[in-house]
Amino acid sequence: MKKFVIIVAGGSGSRMGAQIPKQFLELCGKPVLMHTIQVFYDFDPDSELILVLPEAQHEFWAELCLKHSFSLPHHIASGGETRFHSVHNGLKLIKDEGIVFIHDGVRPLVSQQTLARCCETATSSGNAIPVLPVTESLRKKEGDQNCSVDRSLFYSVQTPQTFRSEIILKSFLQPFDQSFTDDASVAEKAGFAINMVEGNLENIKITSPVDLILAEALIQKKF
Amino acid sequence: MKKFVIIVAGGSGSRMGAQIPKQFLELCGKPVLMHTIQVFYDFDPDSELILVLPEAQHEFWAELCLKHSFSLPHHIASGGETRFHSVHNGLKLIKDEGIVFIHDGVRPLVSQQTLARCCETATSSGNAIPVLPVTESLRKKEGDQNCSVDRSLFYSVQTPQTFRSEIILKSFLQPFDQSFTDDASVAEKAGFAINMVEGNLENIKITSPVDLILAEALIQKKF
Repeated sequence: MKKFVIIVAGGSGSRMGAQIPKQFLELCGKPVLMHTIQVFYDFDPDSELILVLPEAQHEFWAELCLKHSFSLPHHIASGGETRFHSVHNGLKLIKDEGIVFIHDGVRPLVSQQTLARCCETATSSGNAIPVLPVTESLRKKEGDQNCSVDRSLFYSVQTPQTFRSEIILKSFLQPFDQSFTDDASVAEKAGFAINMVEGNLENIKITSPVDLILAEALIQKKF
Repeated sequence: MKKFVIIVAGGSGSRMGAQIPKQFLELCGKPVLMHTIQVFYDFDPDSELILVLPEAQHEFWAELCLKHSFSLPHHIASGGETRFHSVHNGLKLIKDEGIVFIHDGVRPLVSQQTLARCCETATSSGNAIPVLPVTESLRKKEGDQNCSVDRSLFYSVQTPQTFRSEIILKSFLQPFDQSFTDDASVAEKAGFAINMVEGNLENIKITSPVDLILAEALIQKKF
């Protein structure tokens, strides 16, 4: 089945303490985003890759591609106000039926195995999201207080959140809602039950300098 | 005020894929546990340090101390069936009033600032636990299904969980309960409201090979 990959890179990098948005930070000599695109290209070179970037960064991205001789084919869509709006813009470029991967631009370390699990379950069951058990104790805010919760009931959600095209396109016909935290929550609100598959530990979201250090160490060890 | 530190190291290392329990794995040439003990010694060299280890590992630990010329003074207590029982054994060695830090042996990267925040709030308000906001989307199991939850209501809990001695000693008079996931949940069940303070991102729990790679990278960068 045809594969589409929407790579969402809307972040401004404020948490990194860096001037440059985190998706452009260099990881082993190459912007994070180029690593991410490469992983999906390796999974299937025939995938249609759609990169969603704030409009103000399109020119900078073109310059980076030139500088790094980055030539993997990809479309560009414009980032929106929230993740929902960004993904919405990316979905507009999908004209055929197939499997749609929606992935955080700052997760360059998703494994080929995770991609295969997502693809397989989305193909057979309509959707799949990669998750891992929560390893730290959790507490929940309750008004002014907070209480412990049973962490064994919770899963930490990664990307790519993966859907058959008709499911995700139908889900994104809904108007925006504050409760949309990720793409699965949009599909869930549209009435689809969500399937969880196993993610991979290395599939971290690079949002802090500590994450960047880990990502570099993992790449150097050829994880 | 006098400080007591209970360092809990009951893990068997099964998640590490290593023969050696994870608290003994070498991090930059020294067992993880020695790094952890050093951090508390640096915070206050007059602290009374209590290391809780499974009895079967006491001799091995003594050999490691000899091998690494590790001479920071510390008591040894025996690990129990669960974390509750291990901490209980450590608490038996506390004879004076003071502040009690209960810390995971496999968190060698807790910062001096986190220790200071815990100590200050526990002194003024009875207890403190270091937390960070949850950065990944969360899903919750609901029977056969799962649903998205609002992650902004949740905090990821680190250690040292820190208490005035009378509070934690009183809390651990309770019989064991399956709902005890950490030390704060024990104090909570005894009726004490829990205070959250800011932890530090580097304060990871080393439970997987990925965590060990990150810890090494952080130490090498003198985080």
